[in-house]
Amino acid sequence: MDKIEHIGIVVKNLEASNALFEKLLGVSHYKIEEVASEGVKTSFFKSGPNKVELLEAITTDSPIAKFLEKRGEGIHHIAFAVDDIIAEIERLKNEGFVIINETPKKGADNKLVAFLHPKGTNGVLVELCQEIKQG
Amino acid sequence: MDKIEHIGIVVKNLEASNALFEKLLGVSHYKIEEVASEGVKTSFFKSGPNKVELLEAITTDSPIAKFLEKRGEGIHHIAFAVDDIIAEIERLKNEGFVIINETPKKGADNKLVAFLHPKGTNGVLVELCQEIKQG
Repeated sequence: MDKIEHIGIVVKNLEASNALFEKLLGVSHYKIEEVASEGVKTSFFKSGPNKVELLEAITTDSPIAKFLEKRGEGIHHIAFAVDDIIAEIERLKNEGFVIINETPKKGADNKLVAFLHPKGTNGVLVELCQEIKQG
Repeated sequence: MDKIEHIGIVVKNLEASNALFEKLLGVSHYKIEEVASEGVKTSFFKSGPNKVELLEAITTDSPIAKFLEKRGEGIHHIAFAVDDIIAEIERLKNEGFVIINETPKKGADNKLVAFLHPKGTNGVLVELCQEIKQG
């Protein structure tokens, strides 16, 4: 775990929240990206070496829509940067953590990602993410 | 906002969670600190330029005890490092955010801290923290 790569925050309305977080963080979002497979539209802000990701559901059955219905807006997950996601999944599995994605999947912002089940991490949804190298 | 300084996570049992997060993050906590005024015992882990703070209530009427009762274990707040907390509070107040601590208070880990009300930040409890300089 090299650092906190980003914090994911569920919002109702991405456009309104982009304006709000621009005021909060003092910078504009640097990208908006849809991840159709997850039923979600995201925006990203930089905060030094870290990022804040806002998440809006674009389908009613997306995990983000369900989270919003159950918990309301708020922090959804914490993502840690890793160099070798396959090795890290293996290490954490051996430590007894419950891995939701034993095979990493393509996430937003050019990353391979895998989630750990919050039941094994004190209720915290933990994401591992590894930059996809070009070429 | 220079970076994500730390993420605060509410846990039931600090000792058990210290062992769990040591496995997760691959490092031991580097300090345990009680903040009696907040009714809380904390531990800190480093993750590159960032930290993870675990929070256990030590009084039944502490905000952390109330959070645990209402929401269960999980992510409690996100803290951003700032250089000048007084100026940042002023800036955010002018932007319309609701500041819980208009006068910063002494927090854990040698910091001056102030919280923003989550009703103004999409349900996210945001902490500002400034390192207290020695001498």
